[in-house]
Amino acid sequence: MRELWIDLNPDSSKALYEQIYDKIRTMIADGKLFPGEKLPSTRFMAKSLSISRSTVEVAYEQLTAEGYLESRPRAGYFVCDISMLYQQRQDTPETGIVPERVEHKMSALRFSPFEVDAEHFPYGIWNRLYKEMNAAENGALLMSGEAQGDRKLRTAICRYLCRARGVVCQEEQIIVGAGNEYLLLLLAQLLDSCRSVMMERYTYIQAYQTFSNMGYTLHAADVDGGGICMRDVEEQQPELVYVMPSHQFPLGHVMPLKRRLELLAWASEGRGRYILEDDHDSEFRYKGRPIPALWGNDSGEHVIYLGTFSKSIAPSLRVSFMVLPGHLLARYRQRCSFYSCTVPRVMQAVLYRFLEEGHFERHLNRMRNLYKGKHDLLLHLLRQESWIKRIYGEYAGLHVLAELKGGVPEAFVTDRAYTEGLEVHGLGEYRAVPEDLVSMERPATLLLGYGNLDEVDMRRGIEILRHSVSPGTK
Amino acid sequence: MRELWIDLNPDSSKALYEQIYDKIRTMIADGKLFPGEKLPSTRFMAKSLSISRSTVEVAYEQLTAEGYLESRPRAGYFVCDISMLYQQRQDTPETGIVPERVEHKMSALRFSPFEVDAEHFPYGIWNRLYKEMNAAENGALLMSGEAQGDRKLRTAICRYLCRARGVVCQEEQIIVGAGNEYLLLLLAQLLDSCRSVMMERYTYIQAYQTFSNMGYTLHAADVDGGGICMRDVEEQQPELVYVMPSHQFPLGHVMPLKRRLELLAWASEGRGRYILEDDHDSEFRYKGRPIPALWGNDSGEHVIYLGTFSKSIAPSLRVSFMVLPGHLLARYRQRCSFYSCTVPRVMQAVLYRFLEEGHFERHLNRMRNLYKGKHDLLLHLLRQESWIKRIYGEYAGLHVLAELKGGVPEAFVTDRAYTEGLEVHGLGEYRAVPEDLVSMERPATLLLGYGNLDEVDMRRGIEILRHSVSPGTK
Repeated sequence: MRELWIDLNPDSSKALYEQIYDKIRTMIADGKLFPGEKLPSTRFMAKSLSISRSTVEVAYEQLTAEGYLESRPRAGYFVCDISMLYQQRQDTPETGIVPERVEHKMSALRFSPFEVDAEHFPYGIWNRLYKEMNAAENGALLMSGEAQGDRKLRTAICRYLCRARGVVCQEEQIIVGAGNEYLLLLLAQLLDSCRSVMMERYTYIQAYQTFSNMGYTLHAADVDGGGICMRDVEEQQPELVYVMPSHQFPLGHVMPLKRRLELLAWASEGRGRYILEDDHDSEFRYKGRPIPALWGNDSGEHVIYLGTFSKSIAPSLRVSFMVLPGHLLARYRQRCSFYSCTVPRVMQAVLYRFLEEGHFERHLNRMRNLYKGKHDLLLHLLRQESWIKRIYGEYAGLHVLAELKGGVPEAFVTDRAYTEGLEVHGLGEYRAVPEDLVSMERPATLLLGYGNLDEVDMRRGIEILRHSVSPGTK
Repeated sequence: MRELWIDLNPDSSKALYEQIYDKIRTMIADGKLFPGEKLPSTRFMAKSLSISRSTVEVAYEQLTAEGYLESRPRAGYFVCDISMLYQQRQDTPETGIVPERVEHKMSALRFSPFEVDAEHFPYGIWNRLYKEMNAAENGALLMSGEAQGDRKLRTAICRYLCRARGVVCQEEQIIVGAGNEYLLLLLAQLLDSCRSVMMERYTYIQAYQTFSNMGYTLHAADVDGGGICMRDVEEQQPELVYVMPSHQFPLGHVMPLKRRLELLAWASEGRGRYILEDDHDSEFRYKGRPIPALWGNDSGEHVIYLGTFSKSIAPSLRVSFMVLPGHLLARYRQRCSFYSCTVPRVMQAVLYRFLEEGHFERHLNRMRNLYKGKHDLLLHLLRQESWIKRIYGEYAGLHVLAELKGGVPEAFVTDRAYTEGLEVHGLGEYRAVPEDLVSMERPATLLLGYGNLDEVDMRRGIEILRHSVSPGTK
């Protein structure tokens, strides 16, 4: 046992026992006290520092509880062996790892179609629910929950789908997961003989890449005003058709009932044909009635429904869900029920209450109004710009499309805007088969998302675009 | 415009404007006020209810903000069309969906190797960090973050790995994801020509099933006291070998240095050979020094490291991470960087601070002490039981193995215990190739997890097992 000098400061805001605790902990971590070494007795220590013995005892007990010290009955306190834990490796070898591209994502101005308004989120309600759930569940939220997602949450989603989207299903059919792409990775494990997917030529490109990574053969269909061209579906004969009937991304049209029925008829004509309905942002429609889901027209065996809270709440929440037809559900249970649900349980619990207590629908109503205001303002501003040939895809979702005049290439504009601090994307980036440059080439068009922009940002963004489209200016 | 009678209660704890708000909202939701219908003017309403006009205005404004009403300049307030939103579908069709098996999971007593102590989790600290992060980040946490996981969190994980596990890497190499299985689904998209995986005959069966679902050819290797048998690796020539060198699950042994070097030598001898090191619970070792990771012995090109917070914090947190060698990282960036990180950003932010401020290591030290106590107690209790032939896999992790005397089949015991309200698993459930019943059949053995059990539960569980092993008793 060595003597242990601790320089106590009685005027510090830190309690004396904390000062002792800190000092000994640091000495152990720095290797100045060795594993197995005996500490001075509490009595000795108290005397040498002229403080009460109980102060020393509290510090020693804390260190023992945290595993730094070990108390041996009738022998005293000894330093534990935690050397490995604190061993600092100084030598970082050469690895040839290319550093990440540093995005100026969080600082730049963005016309992003995937961002939501972060200012009007009901943080107060959400945080209160979080706090209450944590207090009420008393540790149960630390345990693994149900593989498909907690039943309560699925029941709430089920009710919402029925009420708001005309999707009548049972909570048994719902699989909750961390985002659409994860659910597509699950789905790929259920679609046995299905190896080819058809998507619209302009589509949600992340889904395209996911299918591509999973080894599917991909077909791109032409798109007309009513959505996917049935001629292409009939000709290519894919097993799965991926569509967004309520609001096509990125083009923004609605699939009319006739086309829906044609698509359903195609699916029912062959064995193992599926329609994947991605209902990503149907909550936001600023004119006319909400468009019901395609699922409602199906007999219940061909449509796989994919929904998300990424736009209705926030993308960072990472909660999506999939509704499976009965026979795919049976396969899911056989093959995939060993996967733990990828959404943290506490998130599921908070989301459940958010839905169940009506906060979600109130939030949607409020956001719909707010986004309508932003939408109207952006349209008003864009209509004054002479470099825009036409605007389309308005009155729904969180972006509009602006077709450019005079043959200036998209990439030229987006690159130039980027150097000015504006992130904006061209329609070409959402092209399902980028190498196929001949057919269906659309004129240069920008996606202008407005979910998280205020008037000042919109005006600033439009000004940058105005400069970027005309090579001569600036 | 119809007259609108609202029965106000001046003695209610609800403010008058709230009562008006509630009443009108309910009438809209119930279809008693029609879309497009004009509401009485605030002046008229105030007069007829004998209250101040501003009270009515507050209620109307709230309803407008939430999308129930629409204010038309100089015309008044009109009911919005939200009929679809509130349309209740009463008709639930017949679907033939088999109801879920209802697990009595949350009520039963469980000897689970995957559960953690829920009582001593530092809820106070965690919730404080949650609250602080939400307040400080001011909406930024609603936006999508970096695909590999937020850099700050990866840096903190990187530091921890270096300090505690001897894994020297850069934060660029770390991919954060919602659980090990999700990361394996990502990894499968990077391992080009690699189509066959070898696992130990008794292993983490969820990983086995994931590889199987992804279409890999699976091989099971014999296991001796040092882990995977190199003879089987050499003979079957898989492309990927999945091991748990620091603490094999479920058998509990540590891979000695000699075997590690043999495995690394095998990997470096052929192109495209990988070792997947699953370092699932190396934090909990109750005797001797922590065992460093295999990664530390590699040149940096053959080992893929998989870590998780499922045992060190909680399984329901759903945070795991993977460290990729440089060339796989390059492929990840090319093919998978479009996937959003599957862990909610607020969770990442809280976990970052939990790590960075030392709470994690303090928690680990405390838990190590706590689990050691539980481990010692369980061993003490089990040693008094005459139906146990031998106990092994002790001094690490969160379970021990109890081999049964006298040829009673595992399934008989686990089924019988289940009817008595005890969930317990047999070693056979973790067998990589269940149909292969000839070679390496181990005697009936139970996995006894103790992470979330106290003394009362342990005693009760052991009593149920005592009855369950001997058909005659009870």
